[in-house]
Amino acid sequence: MSSLVLPHIRKLAAYVPGEQPKIPGLIKLNTNENPYPPSPRVFRALKQAIDPRLRLYPDPASLSLRKAIAAHFHCGTENVFVGNGSDEILSLALRAFAGEKCRVIFPAPSYSLYPVLVQIQNARPLVVELGADYTFSVEKFRPNASLSFIANPNAPSGTFIHKRILARLARRLKGVLLIDEAYADFARENCATLFKTFSNVLVTRSFSKSYSLAGMRVGFALGSRALINALFKVKDSYNVDRLAQIAAEAAFRDQPYLRRNVRRIRGTRERLSKSLLAHDWEVLPSEANFVFARPPEGMRAIDVFRHFRCHKVLVRHFPGKRTGAWLRISIGTDKEIDFLLKALQSICRPGKR
Amino acid sequence: MSSLVLPHIRKLAAYVPGEQPKIPGLIKLNTNENPYPPSPRVFRALKQAIDPRLRLYPDPASLSLRKAIAAHFHCGTENVFVGNGSDEILSLALRAFAGEKCRVIFPAPSYSLYPVLVQIQNARPLVVELGADYTFSVEKFRPNASLSFIANPNAPSGTFIHKRILARLARRLKGVLLIDEAYADFARENCATLFKTFSNVLVTRSFSKSYSLAGMRVGFALGSRALINALFKVKDSYNVDRLAQIAAEAAFRDQPYLRRNVRRIRGTRERLSKSLLAHDWEVLPSEANFVFARPPEGMRAIDVFRHFRCHKVLVRHFPGKRTGAWLRISIGTDKEIDFLLKALQSICRPGKR
Repeated sequence: MSSLVLPHIRKLAAYVPGEQPKIPGLIKLNTNENPYPPSPRVFRALKQAIDPRLRLYPDPASLSLRKAIAAHFHCGTENVFVGNGSDEILSLALRAFAGEKCRVIFPAPSYSLYPVLVQIQNARPLVVELGADYTFSVEKFRPNASLSFIANPNAPSGTFIHKRILARLARRLKGVLLIDEAYADFARENCATLFKTFSNVLVTRSFSKSYSLAGMRVGFALGSRALINALFKVKDSYNVDRLAQIAAEAAFRDQPYLRRNVRRIRGTRERLSKSLLAHDWEVLPSEANFVFARPPEGMRAIDVFRHFRCHKVLVRHFPGKRTGAWLRISIGTDKEIDFLLKALQSICRPGKR
Repeated sequence: MSSLVLPHIRKLAAYVPGEQPKIPGLIKLNTNENPYPPSPRVFRALKQAIDPRLRLYPDPASLSLRKAIAAHFHCGTENVFVGNGSDEILSLALRAFAGEKCRVIFPAPSYSLYPVLVQIQNARPLVVELGADYTFSVEKFRPNASLSFIANPNAPSGTFIHKRILARLARRLKGVLLIDEAYADFARENCATLFKTFSNVLVTRSFSKSYSLAGMRVGFALGSRALINALFKVKDSYNVDRLAQIAAEAAFRDQPYLRRNVRRIRGTRERLSKSLLAHDWEVLPSEANFVFARPPEGMRAIDVFRHFRCHKVLVRHFPGKRTGAWLRISIGTDKEIDFLLKALQSICRPGKR
């Protein structure tokens, strides 16, 4: 009876999220979660909200949270959209801006969800292959696509494109440019306010990484009133639940906690990068909360992945021509990274005895 | 710059959810929320879950909750899907089963979200106009539509279609029949297991009404493996957050609480119906947690709506030819319904002095 399912959905190989195994004592460095807990304010706010009001629908417009975000970015509430994770916003953007057969551009290797979302929408994917150093030339983007995705910092590479280049890209494109800034809080620069200059720019952010709230599924978008309005039309009426709105707002209002947390993770990131380089790994310069690194010759990435796993350290391996020789390692606590480095030393390197 | 937005989205008048006003002391009988709090087990489970694990992604497959649901309905976990409210499941069903220009059938008057979802997907709506008593003939459904929606009990009427009629409909239809059972726990019969006989039947349920968890956004679907698989392919990776999964499972595991709660609401529903009839209102037989009722001649529904509002009682009025003379009143506590009936008595009825 699978003829009941649309042909392009039947053909679709579903997006595979990173493993969420329940192995006790596992050091989980595979899905870029934050190793530190959310702000204490989140726990306080949530505890206060666990009461009979759970029987009532949440605010369909997430107004209180949107006001806090708008104040921070010096824009109007009408320039802010809140979604059930920034993944929901990516999916809504396709439905609002790119219909069946419309052209959608995204780079590769990048977030592997983009091609899946394009296929779900039955739109036409145009892949911009990134260079060896994960840069791209603006000219490779066809100006007349309905929608273009750019992850900045990029995943899984952690590399970063300068704001002035994305501004050039925004000027070139006639369609919507969605800048996916899930990791931007860990970067030295971001494009949060680019939408004020370019009405075709939509910037998405996530509470999952920098705010340590992956479990609560909240993301937001900044954009012109027209783009934000369109997202509102397409979204489910009550897309973000009560507790998610409350947790996200409490986290957002604690910017000092965010900054402290980000500082620690950047420190650990630099230390891990240096250690891997000292072990003859190739390491891409990262502006995110993970590093993308390649074991030295004679050491296969998949073998190192398995070796780490035996030592109860889970990292991420993306099979494929461009990524198969690399591993993506989320930044954990200093202790967790020390453990990983120790596990690394126990790998037997051929020809290096 | 609204040319960035797809034409069918530009034209779309967004779905308008019922008001969520923050007036102190307001009796809120407008969006069919449950007047009673969720099970005490929900509060206990949530309190235990507010800890640093919020930094971790939720289970993308909601497996623990799906197992509980599958055990209850004597089916496999692969027959159960969990969504961010049953609204999300309706939207996913369109994306999985009915592409652009595909035919989608839904009755009218019914849940006013159906036409909006069909328009978002740019599919072709086929409206089956319900009779004066809100019944329909199976023959009115074109067999070759990709997807048909039936709300049972229906909203806003509260009326009910027998399982044997829906079984006949399922047999007639070549496409998917989605039976939206958001209110089924309040009815004397349901179609939960119809999917075991008909592989084109998908039944959706909600935690918002009978489980008093509108604030947490959880719904589920029961269906053949092929239909459930298709929903999994289309959904966002992490569509239901940690606390929502935990709250829903705790609520679901307390079936005695659900039954007690439903019994109370049905009792209040019968009392309200009788009182309205005694006041010369027309009242449709309801199998849901609301009644759809029409004030006697000489009393305009919109005026009664305003009168109630002055007395801090909020009910729902749907403008339109078929519904504009009626009001939908959610079943509150006995005390709330007494208050509404008292407010009703203070209405000055022309010619009845």
